[in-house]
Amino acid sequence: MSKTEGQIAMPVIRRLPKYYRCLCTLEHNGVDKISSRALAEAMNITASQVRQDLNCFGGFGQQGYGYITKNLREEIAKLLGIDKPKNTVIYGIGNLGRAVLFHFDFEKFGFKLCGLFDTAPHLVGTELAGFTIKDNCDIENCIKENEVTTAILCIPTVSAEEVVNKLYLAGIRHYLNFSHYDITTHFPDCVSYDVHLSESLMTLGYLITNKETDT
Amino acid sequence: MSKTEGQIAMPVIRRLPKYYRCLCTLEHNGVDKISSRALAEAMNITASQVRQDLNCFGGFGQQGYGYITKNLREEIAKLLGIDKPKNTVIYGIGNLGRAVLFHFDFEKFGFKLCGLFDTAPHLVGTELAGFTIKDNCDIENCIKENEVTTAILCIPTVSAEEVVNKLYLAGIRHYLNFSHYDITTHFPDCVSYDVHLSESLMTLGYLITNKETDT
Repeated sequence: MSKTEGQIAMPVIRRLPKYYRCLCTLEHNGVDKISSRALAEAMNITASQVRQDLNCFGGFGQQGYGYITKNLREEIAKLLGIDKPKNTVIYGIGNLGRAVLFHFDFEKFGFKLCGLFDTAPHLVGTELAGFTIKDNCDIENCIKENEVTTAILCIPTVSAEEVVNKLYLAGIRHYLNFSHYDITTHFPDCVSYDVHLSESLMTLGYLITNKETDT
Repeated sequence: MSKTEGQIAMPVIRRLPKYYRCLCTLEHNGVDKISSRALAEAMNITASQVRQDLNCFGGFGQQGYGYITKNLREEIAKLLGIDKPKNTVIYGIGNLGRAVLFHFDFEKFGFKLCGLFDTAPHLVGTELAGFTIKDNCDIENCIKENEVTTAILCIPTVSAEEVVNKLYLAGIRHYLNFSHYDITTHFPDCVSYDVHLSESLMTLGYLITNKETDT
């Protein structure tokens, strides 16, 4: 089940967090078992999509019986690595960095927040959410002391190259990347998941335009 | 070309903003025409993926010649509705709302920002980026006066139902939705593009976990 990564399409992978969230709610509401049809309804997709998605990882269900909610939630948690906390820093504590800091439930998703970094003089040394924001001169020590493996980059594209060079040298190989800097082209041994927030606005533009021309 | 929406898969639609961004850069750098192979390289995908994607919308290229950069950029701009500005408000001016306000290039992407809304007493009446943040009692007037069609929801899921009810009554049908509230289930005549930021962290968790078990 763990050797299948190369074959699984990103849209399927991107649905896994939705399954996880949905199963947590179902379990919380006392739903012990669930058919692919009911799970599909809760997910707002088709039952055949649910079966196809879960078959990518080995199935998990029984024909004609459905899924045990708790087991399926645990299997998906394992796929998402939620059971293995990854020590993490946020780099860039502007509006986006703060949104990430306050809205992400790090521990629940398998990450452990270990530090906040920024170079702006008015931020360095201030306290936020129990952390002292540090300058990037301190980053190598912090990464080594805390065995940090993962960085969340909340910085503009123009600063990203320099920052990633520094983080890479300090040993960081995993990135949640909000900039447009292409990390894996420069560092093929890194894992980066790129989130281009502003593209969501253009995607909405497409959906609006094509809904209108459709009617 | 405008009647194809129902058949086009979301991953293809989600790549359109990347094509647009890439073509803007190429045009800016004086690249007048480009082969699907070169475009693929710039996009970090395969040439066959490029041809397949663009064929969904009618092709745009000539066999053995490639694409005229400016023409392709203009065709994709039309698909994304960039030529038709949509009057827009941001609802929720916390950290995420501010990140959206300062990082999104509204006009460049086909949107025109018309107002900022929040209910927090310490925010209402303050100035930000040339706007006065307004309370939601003012929202109906603002929407009517400015012919606003689109709202960017930067609010927690728990407040979303009430807010969307209000915005819907005032006439808003298009949403960029950062909450987990499912707008189109409740209002099927709306267009909503949902961005679940925190799921990006879980997706990274999957990529890390499966890279590690793969090696």
